[in-house]
Amino acid sequence: MKKYDKVVKNAAGRQVPTIINGEEHVPFMGVGKHKPAGRKYAPRIASCADYPEDGNKEVSSLKEALINAGLRDGMTISTHHHFRDGDLIANQIFDIAHELGVKNLRWFPSASFPCHGHLIPYLEDGTINRIEGSMNGALGRFCSEGKMAGLGVLRSHGGRYQAVQDGEVQIDIAVIAAPTADSFGNANGVNGSAACGLLGFALADSQYADKVIVVTDNLVPFPAIPWQIHGNYVDYVVKVEQVGIAEKIISGTTKITKSPDRLLIAEMTARFCEAVGLIHDGFSYQAGAGGTALSIGNYFGDILRKNRWKARFIRAGSNKYPVEMLEEGLVEYILDGQTFDMEGIRSMRENPNHVWTSPFTSYNYHGKGNFASLVDVVVLGATEVDVNFNANVVSHSDGYLLHGIGGWQNTLFGKTTILPVPLFRDRIPVIRDEVTTLCAPGEMIDVIVTERGIAINPLRKDLITKANGIGLPVKTIQELKKEAEAICGVPDKPNLSNEIVAVIKWVDGTVLDSVYKVLE
Amino acid sequence: MKKYDKVVKNAAGRQVPTIINGEEHVPFMGVGKHKPAGRKYAPRIASCADYPEDGNKEVSSLKEALINAGLRDGMTISTHHHFRDGDLIANQIFDIAHELGVKNLRWFPSASFPCHGHLIPYLEDGTINRIEGSMNGALGRFCSEGKMAGLGVLRSHGGRYQAVQDGEVQIDIAVIAAPTADSFGNANGVNGSAACGLLGFALADSQYADKVIVVTDNLVPFPAIPWQIHGNYVDYVVKVEQVGIAEKIISGTTKITKSPDRLLIAEMTARFCEAVGLIHDGFSYQAGAGGTALSIGNYFGDILRKNRWKARFIRAGSNKYPVEMLEEGLVEYILDGQTFDMEGIRSMRENPNHVWTSPFTSYNYHGKGNFASLVDVVVLGATEVDVNFNANVVSHSDGYLLHGIGGWQNTLFGKTTILPVPLFRDRIPVIRDEVTTLCAPGEMIDVIVTERGIAINPLRKDLITKANGIGLPVKTIQELKKEAEAICGVPDKPNLSNEIVAVIKWVDGTVLDSVYKVLE
Repeated sequence: MKKYDKVVKNAAGRQVPTIINGEEHVPFMGVGKHKPAGRKYAPRIASCADYPEDGNKEVSSLKEALINAGLRDGMTISTHHHFRDGDLIANQIFDIAHELGVKNLRWFPSASFPCHGHLIPYLEDGTINRIEGSMNGALGRFCSEGKMAGLGVLRSHGGRYQAVQDGEVQIDIAVIAAPTADSFGNANGVNGSAACGLLGFALADSQYADKVIVVTDNLVPFPAIPWQIHGNYVDYVVKVEQVGIAEKIISGTTKITKSPDRLLIAEMTARFCEAVGLIHDGFSYQAGAGGTALSIGNYFGDILRKNRWKARFIRAGSNKYPVEMLEEGLVEYILDGQTFDMEGIRSMRENPNHVWTSPFTSYNYHGKGNFASLVDVVVLGATEVDVNFNANVVSHSDGYLLHGIGGWQNTLFGKTTILPVPLFRDRIPVIRDEVTTLCAPGEMIDVIVTERGIAINPLRKDLITKANGIGLPVKTIQELKKEAEAICGVPDKPNLSNEIVAVIKWVDGTVLDSVYKVLE
Repeated sequence: MKKYDKVVKNAAGRQVPTIINGEEHVPFMGVGKHKPAGRKYAPRIASCADYPEDGNKEVSSLKEALINAGLRDGMTISTHHHFRDGDLIANQIFDIAHELGVKNLRWFPSASFPCHGHLIPYLEDGTINRIEGSMNGALGRFCSEGKMAGLGVLRSHGGRYQAVQDGEVQIDIAVIAAPTADSFGNANGVNGSAACGLLGFALADSQYADKVIVVTDNLVPFPAIPWQIHGNYVDYVVKVEQVGIAEKIISGTTKITKSPDRLLIAEMTARFCEAVGLIHDGFSYQAGAGGTALSIGNYFGDILRKNRWKARFIRAGSNKYPVEMLEEGLVEYILDGQTFDMEGIRSMRENPNHVWTSPFTSYNYHGKGNFASLVDVVVLGATEVDVNFNANVVSHSDGYLLHGIGGWQNTLFGKTTILPVPLFRDRIPVIRDEVTTLCAPGEMIDVIVTERGIAINPLRKDLITKANGIGLPVKTIQELKKEAEAICGVPDKPNLSNEIVAVIKWVDGTVLDSVYKVLE
C-alpha cells in the first residue's frame, strides 16, 4: 500500500494527497465550504443476551481482553491521553500485540507523549503501521524523518470526534484507561489514585468502537459514579495494579510565566481586550495552560474584579488559576475538557459548576453547532504565523513535527482569536512569509500580540477601528515581521524533501496541509 | 395501507401480526433468542456551517420551528412524558399540524396521559394515523374500540430506546419540552418552575431524530447546566409562556397505601425477602411508585436499619421515600429514571448521589448490557397473572387497554422479580388461566405475593427451598387461583373481536402479543 497518492492543490494553495493510506480523503475546500452528505457511522447492534447477566465484564488481564476482542493484523486500536506522560497502558497494548505477532496496526490515540517513545521499535518492526494522532517528541522526530511505514494523520480533538462519528476512522478496539470503574464498565476520571479529571477524549471511542475495553486500578462496586464513560458501551473490564503515574499526569506547563517578555505580552493582550471592549459582564474566554495564557487569565481576573463583573464561563483545560476564579465568584462556570493539575481535578470532583465537557459538546464540527463558536475571546499559542495571518502549531521552522493540534483548530471558531507570541524564539522570527505547516487559515486569526506590537487581521475592521487611540502599539503584520528580521536576520527555509510524511486535517475532515520529510 | 397482516403464532403461543402498519416485524422467539444482526440507525451528519455561529437557535414559535423542521404528511413526531398529565406541548404540536392541514402523522410519545384525550379528534380526522406508545384512559379506550386508523404499538421504555437506536422507528421531528434550556438547546429538568427532574425519556429522540426542537419556559444564558439533553443534537429552540402545569407533573399515586389488605401484602413481601435472604448489606432494589410498592420500600428501610446494613442503590422512579432513605444513609445511590414528586426533584438537583439515568443506561436490551439485570429485588404491579406466571400490565380483564408498559418489562431482568398483587379487584380475580394480554413470559416472574399467600415460580427451586419453614403461607399458584374463585366465582372471558388493534413488543423488538378490539 502506498503511503499516499494523487496530490492536488487545495483551496488554501497547499499540496495535499487525496489518497492516504489507501483511503480517499477530501482536500480542504475553504472554511465552512465542505458539506458532509452522508450518515454517521453505525456501530453493530449488541444484545444483552451476549453479556453477563450480573453485569460483571471483568477479565483477568489486558491480554485476555485484547484476545477476546479479536485483536488481529491491520486493526485500529485507540487510546486516550488524559494521563498525558503518565500513561501506563498504551505501551502495554503494543507489547502484547508484539508478543502475539500481530502486525500492521493503526494506533489512533487522542495524543501521544514522550513516554510513548517506547513504541518506536514497534513502528520499525511492523507491529504498528502508523500513528494517527499527535506525535510529540521522539515520535514526531521519527515521523519527520520519514521512518513511519504509513502516513501520519493529525487531527484536532474535534476533528478526531468528527472522524470517528463520520466513520472516516473505524475503531476496532478502544482501550480506555480509567482512574475508577465498576465491573460493568462505568468509568470516571475524578476518583482514584490516578485521577486525571475526566475521560472525554475517549467518548467517541466508547460510542463507536466495535469493542471497548476499560482498564482500571480502582475497581469499585457498581455503580461507579459519575459515569463519564457508560458501561453500556463496554465489552470488557480489566483490573491492573497501576493505570497511570499520578505525578506525570499533571502537566509541567501550568505555572504562570516569569519571563519579563512573556509577562509583557500577556499584559498587552489583556489591556488590548479591555480597551477594545472584548471583556464585559457575562463574557467568556478560553486560554491554554501555558505560562503566558495563564498570566493572561490572571489579568482577565483583575479586570473582572475591578469592574465587579462576572464571566459567564471559562472554556478550559483547567488548573488552579481558573479554579480560584470560580471559587472567588469571578466566573460562573468552568466548561472543562481536560484538567491540568490536582486543583482542577479536585474542583471538578466537588463543584457542580466545574463541568466536564467532551470533544463532542465543545468541538465536533459535524454536530448541530458546538461550544467553540460561543466563546468571546480565545487566546492561543503558535509556532509560526505568516503575513497572511495563517498559523502553525504542529511543526517548528526547521520542519520537524513536534506538537499536536489539540483543541487549537477547534477553538479558532471563537468570536475573537488572539495569538500572543514572541516576535522570535532562539533568534528565529515567529512571523514568516509563509508558515511551514498550515494549521489555521488566516481568516480564523484575528489578532497577533507580540512584545513589540499588536497586529490586527485586516478582516477585523471593527477591531481596527476600536483599537484606534487606545495607547497600544498597533502595527501591521509586515511591520512586525520587519522588526524581527532587523534583529535576527531573514530566516533560512527549512531543508525539506518533497516526500510527504503526514497530513494535517481541518476540523471538517478535509486535508489542510502536508508535512514533509526533513532532510539532514 | 392495512393496519396489519400475516398473523402467525409466536414462541409464546400468541397470534401476532408480522406486518404492522406496512412494515415487517419479527415475532417473539423466546427470551434472549432473537439476535439482532444489523447496525444502529445512522442519523445524517450535520455541519456547524449550517447552524448559527453565536449558538442561538431560538425561533419565535413552535409553529415556526415545526415548519422549519419540514413538518409534512406521514412524519413521525416524538414527545416525552416527564410532565405526565401536566404536559402542555404535545397537544399544541397536533393543533398546529391540524391547522396546517398535515395528515397521517405517527405520534411516538414515551407515554400518553389523560390530558392527551384532546387528540382524539385528530385521530378521527386523519391528522394522526396512530399512536405508538402507551395509551392511558380515553386514548386506550379509543384504541380498544378499534377506532384508531393505524395499529397501536406498545413498547417498554427500554424497547422504545431500542426501537429508535435500531432504526425500527425513525423519528422525523422530536419535540422536547424542557423546564430549563439555553438558546443552544442544552436542556434539563431539574430547574425552572415546571421542573420535572430529568429528561431521559427524550434521550434517544435527541440522539437519533432528524430534527430536534427544544421548547422551554425558562430560557437561561448558555450554558444551561446540567445538560441532560445536549444542545449539539438540537436544531431549534422555542420559548413559550408555560411548558407544563407544575401541580400535574407530580404523580397522584405516590402515597403509601392505607388499605389494610395492601399493607398486609407489602409486609408479607418484605418479610419474604428478608426471610429468604434477598436483603443483605449492599443489596439493591427497584420498586414502583404505587402505594403498595412504597410501603414495601419502607419495610425494606426498616430491615436495613435494624441490621445496620446499607443498600448500594435503589433504582427508581423516585419520590420522598427513597429520598429519605438516601438522606438517612440507608442507601448509597438512587439511580433514577423519573421523579414522581417535588422531593425527588429537589434531591436530584442537590444530591450528587441521586443520579439521573436514562432508558439507554437502565433498560436498552440492545446495549452491551444494561442496569436492569444488576438489581437484586424488583417489585412490580400487574393487572393479571396466570397459572404459568405470565403477567399482564396493560389491559384489564375486560380487554380494555388502559395502561402503558413503562419500564415494567425491562425491570423483569432483575435477579428476583416479585409481583405483590391482591387476589382480586372489584371481585374480579387477578390470577387467571391465561392473561388477557401477555406482557411478561412466565419465566421472568419469580414470586407472586397476595394477601392470602405467596406463590413461587417452580423454576426458582432455590427460593422454594429457602422459603421452607419461614412461617409465611407459601402455596401453589393454582391454590391461590382456587381461593379467589371460591370467593368471586370463575370470571367471564372478555368479549373480544378477533380484530387486532395494537401489539405488545418485547424488549428486543419482537412482537409478544396482540391486543384485540373490545366488543360492546
